[in-house]
Amino acid sequence: MLNLDAVHQPIAALLAEQLDQVTFIFERQLASDMSAVNNLCMHVENYRGKMLRPMLVLLSGLAAASETAAEENCAALLTERHRIVAAVTEMIHMATLVHDDVLDEARIRRRGSTVNHLWGNETAVILGDYLISNAFHLCSTMGDPAINLALGQVTNTLCEGELVQLHHRNDYSIDEATYLEIIRRKTASLIGECCRLGAQLSDADERICLALHRFGMALGVAFQIQDDLLDLIGNEQVLGKPLGQDLDKGKLTLPVIHYLAEAASQQRGEALMMIMQGDAEQLRDRLVESGAVQRTSQAVMDLVAEAKDELHALPAGPARDFLAALADAVATRTY
Amino acid sequence: MLNLDAVHQPIAALLAEQLDQVTFIFERQLASDMSAVNNLCMHVENYRGKMLRPMLVLLSGLAAASETAAEENCAALLTERHRIVAAVTEMIHMATLVHDDVLDEARIRRRGSTVNHLWGNETAVILGDYLISNAFHLCSTMGDPAINLALGQVTNTLCEGELVQLHHRNDYSIDEATYLEIIRRKTASLIGECCRLGAQLSDADERICLALHRFGMALGVAFQIQDDLLDLIGNEQVLGKPLGQDLDKGKLTLPVIHYLAEAASQQRGEALMMIMQGDAEQLRDRLVESGAVQRTSQAVMDLVAEAKDELHALPAGPARDFLAALADAVATRTY
Repeated sequence: MLNLDAVHQPIAALLAEQLDQVTFIFERQLASDMSAVNNLCMHVENYRGKMLRPMLVLLSGLAAASETAAEENCAALLTERHRIVAAVTEMIHMATLVHDDVLDEARIRRRGSTVNHLWGNETAVILGDYLISNAFHLCSTMGDPAINLALGQVTNTLCEGELVQLHHRNDYSIDEATYLEIIRRKTASLIGECCRLGAQLSDADERICLALHRFGMALGVAFQIQDDLLDLIGNEQVLGKPLGQDLDKGKLTLPVIHYLAEAASQQRGEALMMIMQGDAEQLRDRLVESGAVQRTSQAVMDLVAEAKDELHALPAGPARDFLAALADAVATRTY
Repeated sequence: MLNLDAVHQPIAALLAEQLDQVTFIFERQLASDMSAVNNLCMHVENYRGKMLRPMLVLLSGLAAASETAAEENCAALLTERHRIVAAVTEMIHMATLVHDDVLDEARIRRRGSTVNHLWGNETAVILGDYLISNAFHLCSTMGDPAINLALGQVTNTLCEGELVQLHHRNDYSIDEATYLEIIRRKTASLIGECCRLGAQLSDADERICLALHRFGMALGVAFQIQDDLLDLIGNEQVLGKPLGQDLDKGKLTLPVIHYLAEAASQQRGEALMMIMQGDAEQLRDRLVESGAVQRTSQAVMDLVAEAKDELHALPAGPARDFLAALADAVATRTY
């Protein structure tokens, strides 16, 4: 979970209770009559981390609805449909984690072994497929074609982002616009849709749905930039996984792109050598000293501010404040 | 395409014309604004082979509807919904091919290079995800929650079959019941659903939908047993891919399971040595000589007969005859 000490206590308690129900829906959906399948799913449950996407569905649902209902009765604003969509988005996210670990040949996630490390790439590939399939199946149980369509569109976009990212592996001349387009598709699209759907399920105005979508898109881009930054300059102990994975995989992220775009020709050449030789430590020092890291952090803060601006469209209240606090937590997070 | 010379010509012509439209829907769905994505999808188009699943949707739709309409006007029996579902089932199938090639480390499919061989496992994993996602998205465009739910259920089952199969890799004591349960889930479930959905989209009676589902289930099991048999004793030139891949991957299939179940203890030990050493040629001779291959072929023919029996529930007509011919072609196919 993200660190959100300072926020409204009744909302935090409501959210915790709702997330328990989301977890119940998630686990019930994955239950299979084949024990080999259940064992794998139980392992994946350990991947669950920040629950950012379900939180955004629920909070957006609350914030968008709070205009129409008394604050005391706030639990009643959230329906089973909010909780199902919350579980669906977490399942899609979990599928991408399982497949990303195959792509990254990762051995460790959230301090535990990855599926591919324990059972091999084959099982990780199919387990990811099983999670995607169950996400769509769970979504279909709601009987609402518009939500199925919206989620299918988002997962198409998400896969496009990943494919374009793979296409640019070891592309040392990738520019900021391409990097941003990739992360908008692979990360922000789902986060934006979580916020939009939460509001839509609360029968909010189109204007509010769109504002929350823009909030989620900006927050999603900020989230991914911060994620990439932590892979370069984070603390391995706090993150629970090794640093420098992006560089190992020929994936240039924003601080590096910033540095290369502005460095003088000799410095640029030296940095490219460090990248190709996988010398993450030296590169890191240079990114910090040159101000490229600082500039990237500033980009995250600007995006968070942009996201929070969108919240003015929503009725004032603790759910809206909570969304703002969540956005701040994304910018300051260390894991 | 399967070899179906002897069947009713007007139906064959109608089917060819409808399959062209299915292909159009398929390609239109996968079109992306990112050229890197389009290049990959164009490669996958080459994977398209027998088009068994779309054919079954269309033929089941025709056969189930022909009671209610004049035969001359048979093209009108098939709606855009039949063609969309046909495209969806082919897209799901294509996704499993792309991921199976990752699992099998296959380099060749349909005489061409696999996605994993050309672009790496990472791209193949995400391209498979993109196909699954697009299949669900395309399905969702129909706005019919029941079809989304049915397809989500089938893909869950399909993944379960694959996971259980992986769980039994290098399990030299796998029995026939487990083998059959695996192929029922990983192959027959989708083929059965193609037939059932084709009929359902033609507003057929529940009785006819269920008969066609059983037809597809039996046919699907027969199809997979024959597929596994061809991997052992087929002709590499005709198949367009190398033999013995199942054995290489520690996957015991029906002829081997039959042989091991019936061999005397010494022969059993010798065969197990051949399996573990990957000596496919010697094993093949033994499976042929012992009659295990013959027994497996008989099982395929029995299943095809069982499938064809279900067709008695349908109104007589050329579409029904075509389904029967298709079932026969599955048993006699060499590729």
